[in-house]
Amino acid sequence: MNTEHLGPKIVVIGGGTGSFTLLSGLKHYARDITALVNMADDGGSTGQLRDELGALPPGDVRQCLVALSNTPKVRELFNYRFEEGSGLKGHAFGNLFLTALEKMTGSFGEAVELAGEVLNITGRVEPVTLSDVKLCIKTSDGTITRGEFNIANLTFNGQRPEIWLEPEPAINPAAAKAIAQADVIVVAPGNLYGSLAPALVVPGIGEALAAAKAKKVYICNLVTKPGQTDGFSVLDYADELERFAGTQFLDYVVYNAAKPSDDLLGKYAKEGEFAVEFDELGAKERHYKTIAARLISDEIWQGGQAHDPIAHARTLIRHDSDRAARQLMKIFFS
Amino acid sequence: MNTEHLGPKIVVIGGGTGSFTLLSGLKHYARDITALVNMADDGGSTGQLRDELGALPPGDVRQCLVALSNTPKVRELFNYRFEEGSGLKGHAFGNLFLTALEKMTGSFGEAVELAGEVLNITGRVEPVTLSDVKLCIKTSDGTITRGEFNIANLTFNGQRPEIWLEPEPAINPAAAKAIAQADVIVVAPGNLYGSLAPALVVPGIGEALAAAKAKKVYICNLVTKPGQTDGFSVLDYADELERFAGTQFLDYVVYNAAKPSDDLLGKYAKEGEFAVEFDELGAKERHYKTIAARLISDEIWQGGQAHDPIAHARTLIRHDSDRAARQLMKIFFS
Repeated sequence: MNTEHLGPKIVVIGGGTGSFTLLSGLKHYARDITALVNMADDGGSTGQLRDELGALPPGDVRQCLVALSNTPKVRELFNYRFEEGSGLKGHAFGNLFLTALEKMTGSFGEAVELAGEVLNITGRVEPVTLSDVKLCIKTSDGTITRGEFNIANLTFNGQRPEIWLEPEPAINPAAAKAIAQADVIVVAPGNLYGSLAPALVVPGIGEALAAAKAKKVYICNLVTKPGQTDGFSVLDYADELERFAGTQFLDYVVYNAAKPSDDLLGKYAKEGEFAVEFDELGAKERHYKTIAARLISDEIWQGGQAHDPIAHARTLIRHDSDRAARQLMKIFFS
Repeated sequence: MNTEHLGPKIVVIGGGTGSFTLLSGLKHYARDITALVNMADDGGSTGQLRDELGALPPGDVRQCLVALSNTPKVRELFNYRFEEGSGLKGHAFGNLFLTALEKMTGSFGEAVELAGEVLNITGRVEPVTLSDVKLCIKTSDGTITRGEFNIANLTFNGQRPEIWLEPEPAINPAAAKAIAQADVIVVAPGNLYGSLAPALVVPGIGEALAAAKAKKVYICNLVTKPGQTDGFSVLDYADELERFAGTQFLDYVVYNAAKPSDDLLGKYAKEGEFAVEFDELGAKERHYKTIAARLISDEIWQGGQAHDPIAHARTLIRHDSDRAARQLMKIFFS
């Protein structure tokens, strides 16, 4: 272990686009960064590798590795998707890289570490668990749905459903250690039930968060997900995170206070998505501090660049990497 | 371009197991090594990537990159073959790596260069041509057979058939430059018609070899290939190389003078393969110098290690990397 002083120790919990955005920004201000990644993804290229090769899910790990990478070409390669070829089509190259390494070494953890070397990353990426798990959710009619991909399309608005992983996973010891040693722990914005929940419900994560001496922050989502978080306020999101973790761990909740253009909001409304509102009265009753900040990007993402790491994400209202990272650094130094 | 003095400039022409062996040995004694690789391979994983994705053949390039690599884990990864998964099964990971990079950058040359960086190689690997070619052979009954994979199983013993590439390729300028600047150029042992011919028949290679100031060496094959080189002596092999190149370019022909065990020779004889004999009388009439040396490995390869880079090769009588490399260095310093 490197004992050199590397500045603040920052842990980012999540896995999807929100983690990508935060990590891309943070690597310019901090070197000791640990991305903790949920292991519930089972759709697309990742799902196919899980099904056919019994691999652990590489997709979100890949995105976090790419966010922290300092070699542009290799970074681009990791997100390259094969466009042709029986069985190759649709696979992100980085997913094949991680899966081949996992199969070769017999260890997903080792695969992620070696990939980090090849990508020359700042910091490290750690799966929250190295167990092979499925996300499960129980909705109010008693139905249990298994698999993150299936859950993504489920409607259970306002239910705050029971959510867990099967079989019961063990926390990755490296993840527990990173949480214990951190100066700042941030839950990234992300899909509440599909991405943040599967990170926080891993047994041991809540205990680790409760015990951690770090400043614990949530950078709140910008828009609601239809059928799942309609009408959710900033506080609802934060409350759900603490319910998942089973502990009131948050010290700060940072939310966006800059209104996107009416035009953009109109486009979102057509899809049933709305800006997450802040509830001032409710905030007074919470144990955490709320911080209003301008967090969104000024430039509207136009999509379309084939190898843009987040080109497959639909979201046009995005967090600005640099603004979000600066906000976190400000909390660290405050 | 690095202008630092890196010792002797060595070019190795070939592509298959022989190149792998020589390069693995040479990298301990020289730093300025260029592996020139034939581009005719169209079987197995390589053939599938050519057919389905229109990629240039990565297989032999991969083996040479691996031979020159200094990072054991990544090296192992490049030769890892997927054992499961629709469409992934049978693919060497390094082939997918090179193909993804080629598709991403639009340049096979750039792909090979970047792969070399990732693998931390000593020297460089250059395709002899960047044209997409098929190997063609015309046997005595007038039949033309196309494709290296098809040619591998053809019988045309003693015919010294016409052999060419289609469409007519252009020499890779980097290959021509390496030949012009080399101190030692060695044609590696290898499949005479399937691997060495497609390197030497590229228009421009012969002219470059004829003009080169380097000491030009052939390390001769150890055993004959049934149906194609039955009864070939060391001189027959060397003569064929010069016929392919269209020029009497060889200065030295090094052949093995250590007899393998009777037991091992017996096993080979069952497959129709025999040790390549030396013709002392004929040698007196040749323009090149012949050198007898102990070149074979003392240890008999037992096969079976899943990720042994040459585990898929059948040959048990092998050149010893270190002995062959030392022999070449001796020629350089003589």
